[in-house]
Amino acid sequence: MNKTSTATLLAECPDQAGIIAKVTDFLAANNGNIIDLEQHVDTSDKRFFMRVKWQLDGFNIKQSELSEAFEQHAANALNMNWSLAYSDTKPRMAIFVSQHGHCLFDILSRYQSGEWEAEIPLIISNHTNFKVAAKNADIPFYHLPITTANKQQQEQAQLKLLADNNIDTIVLARYMQILSKDFIQHYPHRIINIHHSFLPAFPGAKPYHSAHKRGVKIIGATSHYVTTELDAGPIIEQDVVHIRHNDSVEDLKRKGQDNEKIVLARAIRYHLQQQILVYKNRCIVFD
Amino acid sequence: MNKTSTATLLAECPDQAGIIAKVTDFLAANNGNIIDLEQHVDTSDKRFFMRVKWQLDGFNIKQSELSEAFEQHAANALNMNWSLAYSDTKPRMAIFVSQHGHCLFDILSRYQSGEWEAEIPLIISNHTNFKVAAKNADIPFYHLPITTANKQQQEQAQLKLLADNNIDTIVLARYMQILSKDFIQHYPHRIINIHHSFLPAFPGAKPYHSAHKRGVKIIGATSHYVTTELDAGPIIEQDVVHIRHNDSVEDLKRKGQDNEKIVLARAIRYHLQQQILVYKNRCIVFD
Amino acid sequence: MNKTSTATLLAECPDQAGIIAKVTDFLAANNGNIIDLEQHVDTSDKRFFMRVKWQLDGFNIKQSELSEAFEQHAANALNMNWSLAYSDTKPRMAIFVSQHGHCLFDILSRYQSGEWEAEIPLIISNHTNFKVAAKNADIPFYHLPITTANKQQQEQAQLKLLADNNIDTIVLARYMQILSKDFIQHYPHRIINIHHSFLPAFPGAKPYHSAHKRGVKIIGATSHYVTTELDAGPIIEQDVVHIRHNDSVEDLKRKGQDNEKIVLARAIRYHLQQQILVYKNRCIVFD
Amino acid sequence: MNKTSTATLLAECPDQAGIIAKVTDFLAANNGNIIDLEQHVDTSDKRFFMRVKWQLDGFNIKQSELSEAFEQHAANALNMNWSLAYSDTKPRMAIFVSQHGHCLFDILSRYQSGEWEAEIPLIISNHTNFKVAAKNADIPFYHLPITTANKQQQEQAQLKLLADNNIDTIVLARYMQILSKDFIQHYPHRIINIHHSFLPAFPGAKPYHSAHKRGVKIIGATSHYVTTELDAGPIIEQDVVHIRHNDSVEDLKRKGQDNEKIVLARAIRYHLQQQILVYKNRCIVFD
Repeated sequence: MNKTSTATLLAECPDQAGIIAKVTDFLAANNGNIIDLEQHVDTSDKRFFMRVKWQLDGFNIKQSELSEAFEQHAANALNMNWSLAYSDTKPRMAIFVSQHGHCLFDILSRYQSGEWEAEIPLIISNHTNFKVAAKNADIPFYHLPITTANKQQQEQAQLKLLADNNIDTIVLARYMQILSKDFIQHYPHRIINIHHSFLPAFPGAKPYHSAHKRGVKIIGATSHYVTTELDAGPIIEQDVVHIRHNDSVEDLKRKGQDNEKIVLARAIRYHLQQQILVYKNRCIVFD
Repeated sequence: MNKTSTATLLAECPDQAGIIAKVTDFLAANNGNIIDLEQHVDTSDKRFFMRVKWQLDGFNIKQSELSEAFEQHAANALNMNWSLAYSDTKPRMAIFVSQHGHCLFDILSRYQSGEWEAEIPLIISNHTNFKVAAKNADIPFYHLPITTANKQQQEQAQLKLLADNNIDTIVLARYMQILSKDFIQHYPHRIINIHHSFLPAFPGAKPYHSAHKRGVKIIGATSHYVTTELDAGPIIEQDVVHIRHNDSVEDLKRKGQDNEKIVLARAIRYHLQQQILVYKNRCIVFD
Repeated sequence: MNKTSTATLLAECPDQAGIIAKVTDFLAANNGNIIDLEQHVDTSDKRFFMRVKWQLDGFNIKQSELSEAFEQHAANALNMNWSLAYSDTKPRMAIFVSQHGHCLFDILSRYQSGEWEAEIPLIISNHTNFKVAAKNADIPFYHLPITTANKQQQEQAQLKLLADNNIDTIVLARYMQILSKDFIQHYPHRIINIHHSFLPAFPGAKPYHSAHKRGVKIIGATSHYVTTELDAGPIIEQDVVHIRHNDSVEDLKRKGQDNEKIVLARAIRYHLQQQILVYKNRCIVFD
Repeated sequence: MNKTSTATLLAECPDQAGIIAKVTDFLAANNGNIIDLEQHVDTSDKRFFMRVKWQLDGFNIKQSELSEAFEQHAANALNMNWSLAYSDTKPRMAIFVSQHGHCLFDILSRYQSGEWEAEIPLIISNHTNFKVAAKNADIPFYHLPITTANKQQQEQAQLKLLADNNIDTIVLARYMQILSKDFIQHYPHRIINIHHSFLPAFPGAKPYHSAHKRGVKIIGATSHYVTTELDAGPIIEQDVVHIRHNDSVEDLKRKGQDNEKIVLARAIRYHLQQQILVYKNRCIVFD
């Protein structure tokens, strides 16, 4: 365990007095130095949410024994749902892409510069446009074209690739296929999509055409977790760009793509850093 | 006519070569010095739009003869729809308000500081909350409460007040009543509303509640001309505010209200400065 | 004590393991239900900062005994600097203004709508422009014109007024006088100024002229605590507006003023809500 | 000449009545259909600026004869400085980069997707970090390390490479060397830099460190033409990102880099599309 290793706890439970005291007592008693602690209370639902990050250097409990210890000394009594992540275990992301490369290239640039603590073991596409880009980045590329006829079978192939590569997070970097309900349920709140509008406005296909037709003065992008209802999953991040009457649909696409890649990258980072809790289809993002 | 007086032409016609030449020739031939000229072509519809502003000092044509001269020497041949406005004729605005005062107070502050070249001869409200504010600003205040039973009759009273005061622009500064089709048709593209969401998302009532429920990360405000279809008129201006998971509905209202008043004020200014042309339910805003 | 009363603790101390546990243990042991808790660690300085807000309803310690109890059971051992505020004790703000009214009118609008939990017992100005506005808002107005000769004497008069009215926060709502070092030291980190540029760019007088001359594409506003070094105090809030080449200095002023009033209002709110800790001339703003 | 070919005129002259008429008459008389026309008047300097873009399809004057014709029929009488560009002549850009790749990768992504009408015949670097990236993009890469001793000689080598490749625009995509006065004067208003602060705040080295130290709440990026005065050239584009007290210098760099690449890309596009006129160290950007 290297000196800067940290553990991050995400937790939620019914609100009650003494939750933070119980969790931080547990850490303090075991010499855990807290780096970050954020909490949130949904007052209407009387529900408590929390993220705590602490240094593992000097911490008295081994990783192999931490879960049980935390359950026994804190979580049990609080009726808490929780998860633990360690900074020295890198998340493993798969990238899905179709024919628009702006998000993919942006992701590869960040990956190559070491911006993210993550592995990208594979890229999956229903087209071959970015085969060379994947090769240049030394990432295995799988071409799985989708037709109405073969969709179910190809999804099985995708699921096998994901399982074989121990993937825990899927990024849809402008992947223009609707995933099946079955596929989605394998990765609950672990598939991140980028939609090219400020949802809930302009869901579905061709949002820039719709935005142009409606004459809006801002266009947006929304990164969200994929759920079985199209474009209706919990929103992780959104941002907008101002436009003018003289911007054509092509201009909207161009300006919008700059926004899409930045919004998606922020959402990926929140996810990788264990900053997100989902409750009632809404994201609590501890930033 | 004082030295800084200007005329502003708004015009639209089928696109063709030579439009700008014909209009600017007419002005140059009569010694009109152009201060601003903007044009826009809707290439898919082959339609041309233009705004020209020039100094009246030294201009050879009298206001009383300008319309006929322009029609004869330029507009006729181009099959042009156009309007003229003069800087020394102040637009006359009526303000409609209900029980939220943030937009009204902002408008009054701008009015009193002389930010706008406009007159506000009256304030109409279905409540009495802002009677004193109107009095403090020396603006006549008319209390016209609305019920299902008296709505038609009260609108007639409103229309009479507007006509008696030569009103040309109506600002709905959070006026929580739906205007009748008949009322709206008296003021086509001259009623400016502020809606507290980034339309087309969250039309109708309680958009901040809907935004909170959906878990969006940005909230918006939209100023638009009122048409007979609710919240679907041509958009003049929009802007947004970023929010976080810990913002309650009350926080959204508070942050949103700051946005609403700024967006409405910008839209009013565009309108007063003759910067807007409406085509196919979209606003061309020459800024 | 009404049901929704809360206490807010702001605290800072050397970083060490167990701080949060000690503070939250103290609250839990006395049945204090935490509503908000935020913390920050300055890792390079090994310094810890914290804000905790809890419900007083059901809390076992009386206000009159809380300070001593907290010192004894928590703060002492941690070598902590701290302050306590209660939601049922309203802060008392004085507004200073000169001849630009946009910030003042915005503040009065918020004050009258009850947006802030605060009292404004007086307005002080070196001009008489806003005497009527103050009267309309039922706030005593004091006209204290400043000359080089009388400045010291007038500041003494101001200080007396502030003391007589138990003022704890001073808002300079575009007050165009430089306060003396002596005056400032009476209210450390309790005088809030709005400067019309994105500091540290364009300090001093006429920032919009400087911005226009430099040809910047964005203009800003900065709200900061006043310190004895001009325009160099800790920054509370900043925001910007995009501009174009065709914006004149007058346009910059107009667009900038909309930004100024929003930025100032946000800063005032952070201050009133006890969300700010100052450390090494930087503001930690728990939002 | 293909159907969508266009010509773009950038021009400036003393302000006077009839300029637009003279220029548009010339185009109309030769059957030039105007697509875009923007103008600006610097009223304090009585100077006029203009950009006109028209279709070459159907236009009666050959490219080889256009300059002389325009000079004779329009520019001469107006004492006009002007330049012409044709859409079927692609600008040729050289990219200079050091060891930060975010701007370079973003540029290559846009280049490969065909977003810009431009050629990139070479990349020059004082390091070898991005040799492979250049190779992957099929762009010749020249490694020219700079020391105090060899700087003058290496700049000569650079200038030769630029001349041999008919380069007209140089993009400094985070090139961490100060160019000599002599070098800069070879490419007046044709070297585009990205500086990682909202100039004029934080010029020079390490702006993110300075921003962190000053405790600003926004960080910026500025793209400008390089002049002989460091970080003081005419500003093409600026944008900002909001930050919080808990953002470290590393966070500022990461968030700032997203902003830098977008701001630089916008500036490059304005330049390539002939949308910029420089006057008195300020950029008029017709957008």
